[in-house]
Amino acid sequence: MAVERSNAQINWNCLMERFEVNILGCGSALPTTRHLLSSQVVHFRNKLSMIDCGEGTQLQFRAMKLNFQRLNHIFISHLHGDHCFGLPGLISTLGMLGRTADLHIYAQSEASKIFQPVLDYFCRNLSYNVVFHSFDPSQCEAIYDDRTLTVSTIPLRHRVPCAGFLFEEKPKNPSIIREMIDFYQVPVSRINAIKNGADFVTPEGRIIPHTVLTRPAKPPHKYAYCSDTAYFEKIIPLIEGVTVLYHEATYAEEDCICAREYFHSSARQAATIARAAGVGQLVLGHFSARYPDETILLTEAREIFPHTILANERMLINIDV
Amino acid sequence: MAVERSNAQINWNCLMERFEVNILGCGSALPTTRHLLSSQVVHFRNKLSMIDCGEGTQLQFRAMKLNFQRLNHIFISHLHGDHCFGLPGLISTLGMLGRTADLHIYAQSEASKIFQPVLDYFCRNLSYNVVFHSFDPSQCEAIYDDRTLTVSTIPLRHRVPCAGFLFEEKPKNPSIIREMIDFYQVPVSRINAIKNGADFVTPEGRIIPHTVLTRPAKPPHKYAYCSDTAYFEKIIPLIEGVTVLYHEATYAEEDCICAREYFHSSARQAATIARAAGVGQLVLGHFSARYPDETILLTEAREIFPHTILANERMLINIDV
Repeated sequence: MAVERSNAQINWNCLMERFEVNILGCGSALPTTRHLLSSQVVHFRNKLSMIDCGEGTQLQFRAMKLNFQRLNHIFISHLHGDHCFGLPGLISTLGMLGRTADLHIYAQSEASKIFQPVLDYFCRNLSYNVVFHSFDPSQCEAIYDDRTLTVSTIPLRHRVPCAGFLFEEKPKNPSIIREMIDFYQVPVSRINAIKNGADFVTPEGRIIPHTVLTRPAKPPHKYAYCSDTAYFEKIIPLIEGVTVLYHEATYAEEDCICAREYFHSSARQAATIARAAGVGQLVLGHFSARYPDETILLTEAREIFPHTILANERMLINIDV
Repeated sequence: MAVERSNAQINWNCLMERFEVNILGCGSALPTTRHLLSSQVVHFRNKLSMIDCGEGTQLQFRAMKLNFQRLNHIFISHLHGDHCFGLPGLISTLGMLGRTADLHIYAQSEASKIFQPVLDYFCRNLSYNVVFHSFDPSQCEAIYDDRTLTVSTIPLRHRVPCAGFLFEEKPKNPSIIREMIDFYQVPVSRINAIKNGADFVTPEGRIIPHTVLTRPAKPPHKYAYCSDTAYFEKIIPLIEGVTVLYHEATYAEEDCICAREYFHSSARQAATIARAAGVGQLVLGHFSARYPDETILLTEAREIFPHTILANERMLINIDV
């Protein structure tokens, strides 16, 4: 499901169906020449939402040719600098680009207390509003909802209060079976009702069940972001069956003492969660700077959950497959 | 004097004589895929000082293989985000690397008011002290001084209070002329005194002037950083004859209205200042994002001051040549 980003690969006709995740940075707190600080962009039906915003996010956002104008929502998992120090620069740049639409930031209540004074000083004449929405990271709750998408919090277990995010596509209507519609001569005016579950009654009074006329929609796709967290089984029912799970895997098993001490996970722990939750694919990320490459993490995770890949900067993960 | 950085080019024996400038970022407020936000590192006798610290500076610092442990002083020209948003991340990273030495930040007094609460929240358990030193950007004053180097402020003219920095090597002692010392049989115990200006008296009572026994030291090298600033002739006497001048050149002449409006300089204005001050070399930087490349800036500047080059990320400028 994961591919390197390439403009040539984009089918522009599919934009409105798109559900994909762009990895901007998947390193842990200490950035390296290989991995940048945490940030992702969820591309859902041509709208962009950001998850976390470490220092340098705006630079990577631009390098990946993502569209600043389509970014309206930013979700911050927790208030460690490597997940949010990129906010002032990004907000400032959006202003210089002439943005007028509100920018919504979902974070713990302390976020606005810390960042608002910085914005008041450095971004006095912004052309748009920054709207902070606070959530309680200890609760599982829907914090964003529109016609097609819900974003909910996933309480995690870290040194500081922290929540992951579950992006859930709303169930789609079933699609009509063109041949059956023609066969029963269903008028166009009835089609929407049938899609929404109404049966069709022929002029002769015969009832044709809607299930005969329609094909069920594909099950909704779901993406779960779980970082930063220690091994935490309570998240399993919340992420059960998600299409793709991004789970932090800061350490290899040989460093599991560090994982315990700093409330992070090992790759094996991430895979154990993925297997228990029956997810479609596991993406490992938030890598410690200590590993020259992450092969050891991948190997250890795949022993438990084979359908695992390593995140990487500029990776594109398709969720709607 | 400017070369692309390469480890192979470093003569490790010369470290203690080194005076060079590393360009980390030379874009203006809107970062692009070509230019990063403002930051430079002055490498003087194996100690590193930073000038400005835009977002992403710590990433570039690491990419350029500079040594975090040798960085002790950071000079912030003014409080626009593109010159200081990298501070919290850098400070946090230095802590994670186990730093214990104080880190000194020289900036206007507002800097500590803005950044201290951010550090108090995100960097609670730092292993070292961050010491803010405030200066008045409207004054030309020495803000740092040690046995070999002085750093002074250069008041500039920008939309907000802003000061450039003059790095001045202290005059060195003259070097002895070995042949003359031998000829007059000067005892070793007298050499330091002679270097410091004492004449030598032979056992026969003949006075040998110290100027006969020594060769004058090379004139001290100086580096001036002038960014951000509108065209401002008052800086000319302050930077007269510097070895290298980095002067902002945000715009080409065709955009001189923008330069006026935003209190920036055109390349031609930077060159006019360089010529009037009789500097050794002019380095242009702080480029607007609007130019696909900066050839136009270089051409316009060289018409006035031929000894001009364009800054670029990862460029190394030797000052002691």
